[in-house]
Order: sequence, then structure tokens, then C-alpha cells
Amino acid sequence: MPLPSRVKIVEVSPRDGLQNEKELISTDIKVELVDRLTAAGFPNIEATSFVSPKWVPQMADATDVMARIQRKPGVIYSVLTPNMKGLEGALAAKADEVVIFGAASEAFSQKNINCSIAESITRFEPVAEAARAAGVRLRGSISCALGCPYQGEVPIEAVVDVARRYVALGCDEIDVADTIGVGTPQRVRDVMTAVTQVVDPGRVSGHFHDTYGQALANILAALETGISIFHTSVAGLGGCPYAKGATGNVATEDVLYMLRGLGINTGIDFDAVVDIGQWMSAHLNRKGGSRAGNAVAAKRAA
Amino acid sequence: MPLPSRVKIVEVSPRDGLQNEKELISTDIKVELVDRLTAAGFPNIEATSFVSPKWVPQMADATDVMARIQRKPGVIYSVLTPNMKGLEGALAAKADEVVIFGAASEAFSQKNINCSIAESITRFEPVAEAARAAGVRLRGSISCALGCPYQGEVPIEAVVDVARRYVALGCDEIDVADTIGVGTPQRVRDVMTAVTQVVDPGRVSGHFHDTYGQALANILAALETGISIFHTSVAGLGGCPYAKGATGNVATEDVLYMLRGLGINTGIDFDAVVDIGQWMSAHLNRKGGSRAGNAVAAKRAA
Repeated sequence: MPLPSRVKIVEVSPRDGLQNEKELISTDIKVELVDRLTAAGFPNIEATSFVSPKWVPQMADATDVMARIQRKPGVIYSVLTPNMKGLEGALAAKADEVVIFGAASEAFSQKNINCSIAESITRFEPVAEAARAAGVRLRGSISCALGCPYQGEVPIEAVVDVARRYVALGCDEIDVADTIGVGTPQRVRDVMTAVTQVVDPGRVSGHFHDTYGQALANILAALETGISIFHTSVAGLGGCPYAKGATGNVATEDVLYMLRGLGINTGIDFDAVVDIGQWMSAHLNRKGGSRAGNAVAAKRAA
Repeated sequence: MPLPSRVKIVEVSPRDGLQNEKELISTDIKVELVDRLTAAGFPNIEATSFVSPKWVPQMADATDVMARIQRKPGVIYSVLTPNMKGLEGALAAKADEVVIFGAASEAFSQKNINCSIAESITRFEPVAEAARAAGVRLRGSISCALGCPYQGEVPIEAVVDVARRYVALGCDEIDVADTIGVGTPQRVRDVMTAVTQVVDPGRVSGHFHDTYGQALANILAALETGISIFHTSVAGLGGCPYAKGATGNVATEDVLYMLRGLGINTGIDFDAVVDIGQWMSAHLNRKGGSRAGNAVAAKRAA
């Protein structure tokens, strides 16, 4: 299949990235991060999560972040909404898109929220209904789609089943998420091929973690099956909650570098993204997690 | 094109990896490294370089290393031979394969050895002739095949031209080397497709650096053009001499993880390689450069 000529990058660093940071990040920095991402040309930014501050203290300032960011018309600012309370916060904050999420792994679902996969999706019915009634976009994320930290292999049919349920809930976009970064390219092709039998390929995104270094190869494989939306995190911000010291989200810079080489347009300013990655890494007092970002920074310093 | 069912991994850490290490590594450690790689099942190990110790002090113990390693029958122990003196050392040390090398970039050739590409290859004629006369394998490495630190883009025809010259010299194997890691998958496909017009695909190898995080995606692209030999370095040992702090050779663990996922056989023990990577990284007092290696180590420690 010819590769898509244009790809939508959903930048997830403000949410999936920072959520996994131990050090509490100030609201000022979060707002600056989102504003800089907006200025760099990202069409969709996962800005925060309306979740209980008891569970995720890092996201306790969700309302403030949403109130203070400078929005650019046409850019989609997405937020996670685990329940009706989260949805109400998201609507009050005028989020453009709300994100619901469930695992494709029974073991993960039982262990994390003590219910079956099917039940976990059913619980989102009122959230989905209220989102549709309010006219905001609805995105459904399928976690553990390429493997699970508890049960290991996840059947492709289980992924497709969650995708079908999201379609029934009215999701505009559906994420196939390799939460623990264990997937490899052929498996990615097989999963994407199966999911795009039940969802239009233009509405499916790939969310790949780079835990085992496979993310770029997996994105290439997904591109070859017609997928044209990918989630990335500047400087690979985030890490992996299931393996301390391991890599988390794929780095935006590495993905942009590959897409540019493939002649695929994203509308995003690569050099500005390198700057953002170096700035956030310096703020967090660490070396950046993007190989392309670090190489460009090293060349600049030479 | 269907992917190859078997891939030959040429492990280059003892040479291309350690050569770029600042700290002088003891001969004991080098011998232990090669012996552990042999035990892990690598079919081909780039063991050292017979080069002037003035230029590369790290490789000054080439003869000792070759004398002390425990060879396994069938395993190819390769060494770099920049000239006749190097070749004589290599033959005396009973290397199985000698490696000659030249750039596909005129600017790089002029800047590094003060002669044209064509002349740089002509200089290897006596080395090639002596190697053939001695009955050892001859490998030719095309550096800067995907880009050059001085001239930027490198024409594909220049890569093909060097390949043709290596064929004329009688090379058994020819490396397409992305010395500075700037290549992206479509360019890799184009270069490999062109090179395999003049060399049998089974005799072409891909040597990818991960400087911009592209190496695994590039290997996937190369596999799709029928390439079945790849160079890797355990724990990504080596770094990049052209950009301080940037990544160097692709990490063996990440490549093995992907190949296993693709159902491609290498005959190499993945867990043993993770052990070797962690051991060498500890010896060098740094975190390993393999994402898969670090993830496995983190899981083991959990």
C-alpha cells in the first residue's frame, strides 16, 4: 500500500508524558509546553487529564492548564475523561476532544479496574453520550493492544472487539496503543489490518511506546497498512511505569525525522520541536530521550 | 518481497564499538567480550582492526586479541585492514575475513584520506589480491552510503559505483554503511535496490547507526528489499565520532528483539546478549544503550 502523503501527529507529552514524571511540574511550565507545541504546528495536543488528583497528582491542575493555554483555531486540545465527573470538568474547560480508554487485555482490566473488558467499556456509555450531546469529539484508546504486562500475549480479536465497542459508542477516533512497547512490526501490521476491517483507517491511530526500541519500525509498518495518525511525545517524555528506567512514549523528533525522510507532510516545525525537547529535558535536569533531538543538539553545539 | 527467514548478524562491538570508546579497554576485557559473543551464537564477529596504533590506540593490541580469543569452528572473525601492513598482521593472526573500506562521498574521501573515492579503492588492490591469494574472505565497506557529514546528500550512483569496484576486487560481502545514521527507510530501500542490481542481495549487508533513531526502521526497510545481513553492536557500544553525545551503532538487543518478533531466525541467544550488554555497560560505568536490553534488565530487577 502506498504510504499516506500526510500524517496527523497527536502530541501527548503534556498528558501521557508528564503524568509519568515523578517530579511535580508547575502549571506555568505545562502551559508553556502546550503553547510552544501549538506554535510549532501540532494539529492535536493531549493537554491534560480530568482524573482524581488522589490517583494522579500530576494532573490536579487540569482546569487551570486548560484555562491558561493560548488556543489556536483548528487545533484539537484533547483531555482524558475516566468518568462523568471527568467529563463535566472537561466540558466546563471547553476541551475539543475527550478520551475514554480501556484495555484489550482481560488480565489488565481485572487487575487495574477490577472488571471485565466489556464492563469497562459499558461504564463509558454515559460519558460518550454526554460528549456527543455536547458536540465534542470522542476518542477511544485501546491499551495493551500489542501485549500486556500481566497476561503477555493479547489476542487480535480482543483488540478488534474493543474497537467495535468504541465504534458503537460513537468514537471519532480509535487508538491502538502499545502501552508497554512490546510489539514488533509484523504483529503491528496484523493488528492494524484487523482493526481497519471494522473502523475506517483514517480514524485509527497508532500509539507506540519505545520500551524495546521498536516504535519507529512499528510506525513504519503501520504506515504501510494505511494508518496516518500517530501519538508521540517530545524528547520521549514519560518513561515506562511498568519497567523503571526503561523508555516510554516514542520521541516526536525521531518520528518527524523519519516522516520527513519519507516525504510525508505533518505541518510541524522540526527544529522548533528539537528546541522544545531540549528545553523540557533541561528543566527536568536530564538528557533528552530523542536520538534525533540529541543528534541535532550535538551538531548545533559543535 | 517476503522477508528472509534467516538473518546473519555481524557483531561489531569489539571493533566499531570499542574503537570509539575514549577509555582504553584492557585486552582481557576485549578477549572476554569476543568469547562471550562467540558463546552467545554470533556467526560473525568483527574482532579488531590492524591499524596504526598512532591513529587508533584502542586497537593497538589487535595481535594479542586475535591470539587469545577462543575460536569456534564456523564462526567468522573479521578484522579491518587499511593497508598491506594491516593485511600482513591480519594474515599472521589468522583472521577469517579482512575488511577494506572507502566512502561513497567525495568530500569525505578528500577530507579523510586526501584522495578521490576511485583512488581510495584502487589503493586496496594489493590488499585484495593478497587476501584472495591467502584464501581469506574479503569484505568491502561503503561508508557514508546514506549521507555525509561534509557534503550532506550522497548520490545513489556513487554508492553503486563503489559496490561495483568492490565486486571487481573480488569482495565476498559488501556493506552499505550509514556511518552517521542520517538515513530514512525509503532512501534505504532505494539504495539497497540499486546496489542489489550489481551485487547479489545475499552478499550485501546493512550497517546502520542509530544517531537519529532510524536504525530499526531502516533495517525493516532493508529486509523488505531482500537484505539478510546486518551489523549490530551490543548495548549500542561505540557512540558517534561526528556528534558528541549522540547514539552510534544500532544495539544488537533491539535488532534481535525485532527479528524474533518477525519470526526471523538468527541462531543467537537473546538473553545471553542482554547479559553481555549489561556487563559491558557496567564495566564502562554507564547505562546501556539498548532499549530492549534496558527493558529486560529492568524487568529482571523488578
